[in-house]
Amino acid sequence: MAKARQFVVLALRIATAAAAGVAAIVMATSHKTTTVFGVQVQAKFQYTPSFVFFVAANIVACAYSLLALLVPPASPAARHVLVADAVLGMVLTGAAAAAAAISALGKNGNSHAGWQPICGLVPTFCDHVTGALACGFVAVVLHLLVVLHSIYTMNS
Amino acid sequence: MAKARQFVVLALRIATAAAAGVAAIVMATSHKTTTVFGVQVQAKFQYTPSFVFFVAANIVACAYSLLALLVPPASPAARHVLVADAVLGMVLTGAAAAAAAISALGKNGNSHAGWQPICGLVPTFCDHVTGALACGFVAVVLHLLVVLHSIYTMNS
Repeated sequence: MAKARQFVVLALRIATAAAAGVAAIVMATSHKTTTVFGVQVQAKFQYTPSFVFFVAANIVACAYSLLALLVPPASPAARHVLVADAVLGMVLTGAAAAAAAISALGKNGNSHAGWQPICGLVPTFCDHVTGALACGFVAVVLHLLVVLHSIYTMNS
Repeated sequence: MAKARQFVVLALRIATAAAAGVAAIVMATSHKTTTVFGVQVQAKFQYTPSFVFFVAANIVACAYSLLALLVPPASPAARHVLVADAVLGMVLTGAAAAAAAISALGKNGNSHAGWQPICGLVPTFCDHVTGALACGFVAVVLHLLVVLHSIYTMNS
């Protein structure tokens, strides 16, 4: 039973690390140069603070998920790991939500604020960002499963 | 000792409910009408999906924090409450982060995307939103303290 639990956590943490790592790489490699009315327009993730935060949070989540595997599940440090898990879950969700808010603005714009959608100009950039967000939300869900598993198996 | 712990959770949950409630009310009452070059411009929180999500998440957090007080800390349901706490923490952080991303865009704009800052036109609306965000982040921190307290006191 204990072995099975350890395997579930191992699989979930590795899957979280993979999803977060892919999310960071896909977002970090999203850049596109296009020409609009003879003017060269560049779209880069570095131009949007929320996307930079997304990359940073996912790199941290990837590294942390692998490092957390070094802590034995039944050790006294397991409780501290659960605390770190809870904090990381909040940071990771915040990063994904902020990036999703800006991504939605890029797709739909906001006519009330006079912000035009830009995905028509740089569709491949937007597709890249959407792919990164999908991986980011998969990482959030997998990390949440780690947290739930830890809560239900702690001291039991 | 158990009484002291119960009091800490009680105080933290009530404070979280208050901060989240104030955040929702301040955001929900943020609207401003102004005239720019003879054209009437309206700024309302309903025009921005992230602000609507922020209001909804904070209403849920306010109601949940009060309802969670009905569950005795040492009961078998305490573990389920901790799970709900962890999920709510992630949702609340996501809502605050998404609203903060859009708020920052309203203040600074994004020249690369051609999105102009709008806070110069509707400064009181932006101040209102900033106030709501401040309360929202206070609610996030207080809720995180509830989660940490629950983790460190569970089964010990």
